Amino acid sequence: MDQPEQGPIAHQSAVFTDGLTLDCGQHLPLLTVAYRTYGALNAARSNAVLICHALTGDQYVGEIHPLTGKGPWWDQVVGPGLPVDTERYFVICANVLGGCMGSTGPLEPRAPGEEPWGTDFPPITIRDMVRAQKKLIDSFGISRLFAVIGGSMGGMQVLEWAATYPEHVFAAVPIAAASYHSAQNIAFHEVGRQAIISDPHFAGGKYYATGEKPERGLAVARMVAHITYLSEEALSRKFGRKLQGSQPTPHALALFGDMFEVESYLQHQGSTFVRRFDANSYLAITRAMDNFDLASEHDGDLPRAFRGTRTRFLFVSFSSDWLFPTRESRAMARALNRAAANVSFVEIESDKGHDAFLLDEPDLRRVLGGFLQGCALHAGLENVAA
Amino acid sequence: MDQPEQGPIAHQSAVFTDGLTLDCGQHLPLLTVAYRTYGALNAARSNAVLICHALTGDQYVGEIHPLTGKGPWWDQVVGPGLPVDTERYFVICANVLGGCMGSTGPLEPRAPGEEPWGTDFPPITIRDMVRAQKKLIDSFGISRLFAVIGGSMGGMQVLEWAATYPEHVFAAVPIAAASYHSAQNIAFHEVGRQAIISDPHFAGGKYYATGEKPERGLAVARMVAHITYLSEEALSRKFGRKLQGSQPTPHALALFGDMFEVESYLQHQGSTFVRRFDANSYLAITRAMDNFDLASEHDGDLPRAFRGTRTRFLFVSFSSDWLFPTRESRAMARALNRAAANVSFVEIESDKGHDAFLLDEPDLRRVLGGFLQGCALHAGLENVAA
Repeated sequence: MDQPEQGPIAHQSAVFTDGLTLDCGQHLPLLTVAYRTYGALNAARSNAVLICHALTGDQYVGEIHPLTGKGPWWDQVVGPGLPVDTERYFVICANVLGGCMGSTGPLEPRAPGEEPWGTDFPPITIRDMVRAQKKLIDSFGISRLFAVIGGSMGGMQVLEWAATYPEHVFAAVPIAAASYHSAQNIAFHEVGRQAIISDPHFAGGKYYATGEKPERGLAVARMVAHITYLSEEALSRKFGRKLQGSQPTPHALALFGDMFEVESYLQHQGSTFVRRFDANSYLAITRAMDNFDLASEHDGDLPRAFRGTRTRFLFVSFSSDWLFPTRESRAMARALNRAAANVSFVEIESDKGHDAFLLDEPDLRRVLGGFLQGCALHAGLENVAA
Repeated sequence: MDQPEQGPIAHQSAVFTDGLTLDCGQHLPLLTVAYRTYGALNAARSNAVLICHALTGDQYVGEIHPLTGKGPWWDQVVGPGLPVDTERYFVICANVLGGCMGSTGPLEPRAPGEEPWGTDFPPITIRDMVRAQKKLIDSFGISRLFAVIGGSMGGMQVLEWAATYPEHVFAAVPIAAASYHSAQNIAFHEVGRQAIISDPHFAGGKYYATGEKPERGLAVARMVAHITYLSEEALSRKFGRKLQGSQPTPHALALFGDMFEVESYLQHQGSTFVRRFDANSYLAITRAMDNFDLASEHDGDLPRAFRGTRTRFLFVSFSSDWLFPTRESRAMARALNRAAANVSFVEIESDKGHDAFLLDEPDLRRVLGGFLQGCALHAGLENVAA
């Protein structure tokens, strides 16, 4: 059997032999949580910040990626002197349950020496991901996280952390997120899933044994998702109607000939993605996102999810994000207000779309840095004063 | 060789043995234009209205579709007593060049008895489509169309008609259109094309001979396009997060188990589409749309496309259309103003998205009916007074 490309990497991980019981009722007999940490845990174990990654992110938030060689994925936010200052905080980032960078998921064997789970991997929820992270945090002897921070699906996890473990989260920062996945977002995910399962190399999910991966289907899924991560303005500014290469007139374009730059860019996004991601994992995680509806876990009443909470919240949205638009962050902030919580909400003007949370946005650094600084004072954290 | 499903239908058509020279420089030796007409041409041949169809539309604008059995595709606009009143006007609708309902395109043989063009079909432009329609109109002995009307890609053709043949168009109505295809629109089309060419049944476009069509790829292309035709509001109102079938709790969802209604709806859209559409035709027509940039055909100056025009214009947009947003129609109306043209512009409030032009929109009927009535008076058309 061919090894998946990410197989050879020895991801740092914690193994929980008592497993994990999932929302679907199934019990995973063995739970592995792959993670990375940055900085040092203080003696009081009170300076831990958990970073939750998005759909296609992973635990390598603050270092060169071992597979792609690219820089840290949140180099605008996590690092020395940055808002999540690795010289002040103990930063933890874990690969989500269902992911493909070492945590238990479709790519991992059911039991040591057995075949990968593949599509037999049970359906998971965002709350399952958070429960797995909780076990990791417990294993560090950390009773309360100073902050939980994440964008997009990472923001969904932040919400679940605050709703499920309110006593264990001092500050929560959901960025470019929503309390549920909308019909349009589900629809875009479903297109991607159909592209994957339509690829003959998908082979009903049993492709690990064939040596062929459903790369073309996964690339198409990545392409359509990538469009939703960018704003119309960003695409127009970046590419407009510029032609690839030798700039022929549009009329000379053949059906398979010269292309617009935006097409070449998307194709590149698709083809590089398949080298680092697993198709079954993409199916499992998009399903978890689609199923996310925090209010439905609390009798349809979003404020009830946070009743009596003492967690301090900062919601951040971006003006040109049409995947998780500002109105969703505002609705969550209002729900928190109705729960009498300590909540701030900032919409950042940006034309970069959903992806703005990963990009160079000085306003994000300023807002996040200020919020964390204030929280550190309230939390009585030493060594974090400006 | 298997016959394509649409093969058995004998589409009404006009054949031009002098062919057509395309913008790309190639000459099609034989041009077939499949079309339908409704109503009667008056003695002065002055009451003809040309309807231009959109990407996946065809000539069966005012009758039951011979392949799908569905009702007329523009039953809100074309018919007795409707704005384009078939008791007053002679309505013509032609399958576009590159289409797959009888007009010359990838599905048709290069010459009688030969193989279909397939991917060897030359790249075409919106202007090529319009030139083919002009030959059909000429063959009817019609020197001036009373009106040219169309939505989406149909609106692009309307613009080309008015720019290329200004003396032959009395009134022009581009609906939910734009003078160019944006980077985001190109990107969504490219996802669809990649889904098609990634389907192994596509076989480099030579699938007519194999008996297998790239149905899954084409279905995915249709699914992603369909999302762009609807507004986020329409999707939410229609589906929200309703589950398909027996309404289990979200946590009981399996990877391939129960689905959200919006997924089932999209899959249905994809699977029915492949029965009536040809993949190579989809590639050719989406390329033509992507290449459309009217200003670029006039030294980058949109008003120059219409300088000195006497055509009367009505631009219509829909407030929730994010594929061809209102700002594009407004920009065109302003360009026409700068060309000192007779131009009206109406944005219709609707939450139905781009597809609103095909749906029950009383405001569209009212605005279009009023405009055509006024134009009929100015054109001196008899028998069309209210």
